[in-house]
Amino acid sequence: MRMLTEQNLDDLAIGAAVLGTGGGGDPYIGKLLAQSAIRQHGPVKLLSLDEIGDDDLIVPSAMMGAPTVMVEKIPNGKEIVAAFKAVSSYIKKPIAATMSIEAGGLNSVMPISVAAEMGLPMVDCDGMGRAFPEIQMVTHTIYGVSATPMAIADEKGNVALINTIDNRWTERFSRSITIDMGGSALIALYAATGKQLKELAVANTITFAEQIGRTVRQARQTETNPVEAIRRITNGFLAFKGKVVDLQRRTVGGFARGEAHLDGIDEYAGSKLEINFQNEHLVAIRDGQYIVTVPDLIAVLDVDTGEPITTEAMRYGFRVAVIGMPCDPRWRRPKGLELVGPRYFGYDVDYVPVEQRLG
Amino acid sequence: MRMLTEQNLDDLAIGAAVLGTGGGGDPYIGKLLAQSAIRQHGPVKLLSLDEIGDDDLIVPSAMMGAPTVMVEKIPNGKEIVAAFKAVSSYIKKPIAATMSIEAGGLNSVMPISVAAEMGLPMVDCDGMGRAFPEIQMVTHTIYGVSATPMAIADEKGNVALINTIDNRWTERFSRSITIDMGGSALIALYAATGKQLKELAVANTITFAEQIGRTVRQARQTETNPVEAIRRITNGFLAFKGKVVDLQRRTVGGFARGEAHLDGIDEYAGSKLEINFQNEHLVAIRDGQYIVTVPDLIAVLDVDTGEPITTEAMRYGFRVAVIGMPCDPRWRRPKGLELVGPRYFGYDVDYVPVEQRLG
Repeated sequence: MRMLTEQNLDDLAIGAAVLGTGGGGDPYIGKLLAQSAIRQHGPVKLLSLDEIGDDDLIVPSAMMGAPTVMVEKIPNGKEIVAAFKAVSSYIKKPIAATMSIEAGGLNSVMPISVAAEMGLPMVDCDGMGRAFPEIQMVTHTIYGVSATPMAIADEKGNVALINTIDNRWTERFSRSITIDMGGSALIALYAATGKQLKELAVANTITFAEQIGRTVRQARQTETNPVEAIRRITNGFLAFKGKVVDLQRRTVGGFARGEAHLDGIDEYAGSKLEINFQNEHLVAIRDGQYIVTVPDLIAVLDVDTGEPITTEAMRYGFRVAVIGMPCDPRWRRPKGLELVGPRYFGYDVDYVPVEQRLG
Repeated sequence: MRMLTEQNLDDLAIGAAVLGTGGGGDPYIGKLLAQSAIRQHGPVKLLSLDEIGDDDLIVPSAMMGAPTVMVEKIPNGKEIVAAFKAVSSYIKKPIAATMSIEAGGLNSVMPISVAAEMGLPMVDCDGMGRAFPEIQMVTHTIYGVSATPMAIADEKGNVALINTIDNRWTERFSRSITIDMGGSALIALYAATGKQLKELAVANTITFAEQIGRTVRQARQTETNPVEAIRRITNGFLAFKGKVVDLQRRTVGGFARGEAHLDGIDEYAGSKLEINFQNEHLVAIRDGQYIVTVPDLIAVLDVDTGEPITTEAMRYGFRVAVIGMPCDPRWRRPKGLELVGPRYFGYDVDYVPVEQRLG
């Protein structure tokens, strides 16, 4: 157990945005929200997975929607508490803690607001080890944990509570409601016991994100290469260095979808890279060849500062390094690839681990 | 108090379809569902408004969606019970009875399934005195009663429970979910007390629908004109007689929308009529002049048998009589017209009562 204070937030938000692989929300907004919650209610207890009881009930909390919308429709911190309370009151059992459902600049720190306001601890884990665009794409689904009861709340005071027969239906209903709520909403879902989480959750995500963030900060201070520091700590592989020369981004069906085209620089001069995204980066194609695909992570970093660039923040002319990182091994099992492999997203290519392609 | 038995269903479903003004669902499906519920669980107690206690809590139950979908996706009677139970368990108070939220071939009799299966009485009233296409279009809204908590259930076992800040938001979320559920769904909503209903509900709708149905049946038996019999008992006005020569109908945004064009016959030979609909008939335009508009009722009847024709059953070549009927006076108040007047539906015309136009 340790306390999360304001001092942890800078590193945490930056590191989580690296793991967010383009999605998971804006780290700056995430930091401000968590900061305000901690200032008001005090530091938040962070428990490791082995510190929670087997019967403890843990309810994750998060923001849902297109990152392009999230940056303009900033939550006030109350909606996520409303969602959390709606699920808790439906479950009718005491909730022991909250947690992040995904790693991402916003979604790694959003649960801090809930924990602070509800006086609950937060568990140091998540359900992806990265960010993914759809509700059913969590390790909970692989292990048969239901997304519902799920609550969705907006800033106006609307709350929906849904109970579905499987997690794909949860995605469908909650996506429609999120669109109706203006393209982003606050959610609580995937209630699971400590026993279940010890088996299914990706452990220590918060601590790992902080380490990544600290690494970036220290690299900048010591004038070592931040991109290289990130590559090393994430066991990643440099996939490309280039300049964004074309960018198509549209908010459709509740997602930010699009593609970025990069012209190579430095050792990649003459090469081209295409990155496709749906909230998160899905595939990176170098000179016509897939080099990184989901579920492995594709981080786009400022080539000089190592700052992670989210899909909604990407701009023409940005000079970036692209790092491929191995995903949590659970995603590489048949059940995991069925949920989040390249074929699920419509790419006619088999998944090959990034370390085989770039190692 | 009286008992609703199988013998009541034929008259009830036909009469309610007349009041359904083109919508409210197929009377034949409604009859079969209620029949099966009564056969299984026995007759249903029908209470008049003055027989319910002021503190009794009444929860209406209904089918929601495009009638074009409802005729192909027939409910099994369990979903509506699931919706009803979801609202009841959220409210945490005993529910004294159910009722129809609207008059219509299907929606006047759907609550019979709930009443039979739950062992509850049904109240002889509704929230419109007709059918309307959107959730907020009930007298409950005029009197400030919230549509939520509202439950929506499908035949697969999915259930959503929504709580919104107003009834327009309820419409928005529930329409999206209904579309996701395949275009039709079963709902429970607008919980109200006996005291509230005595003021706001349209009284005796079930009994009135039965009377209309009986009138049609008897007219057919005695070879008097069924259309004229309906006109008389509803205080209506003959607006047109004609043949359907053009029909456009599309299922968009969860509604059956379209228009029918009729060429006059008999005393209307040489005239033309256009009827626009959104699940229900909205306006009738004769030779370029509005002659009946919402909220007054527009019933399209087979010119010979008086059989009410729903918007989804209308076909090219049908020979029909069109009757305009005065709506419940609550709809004619400013608050009522704001909800369901012609301008709400996008028609640039003031509401003029049908008796002023055709009387």
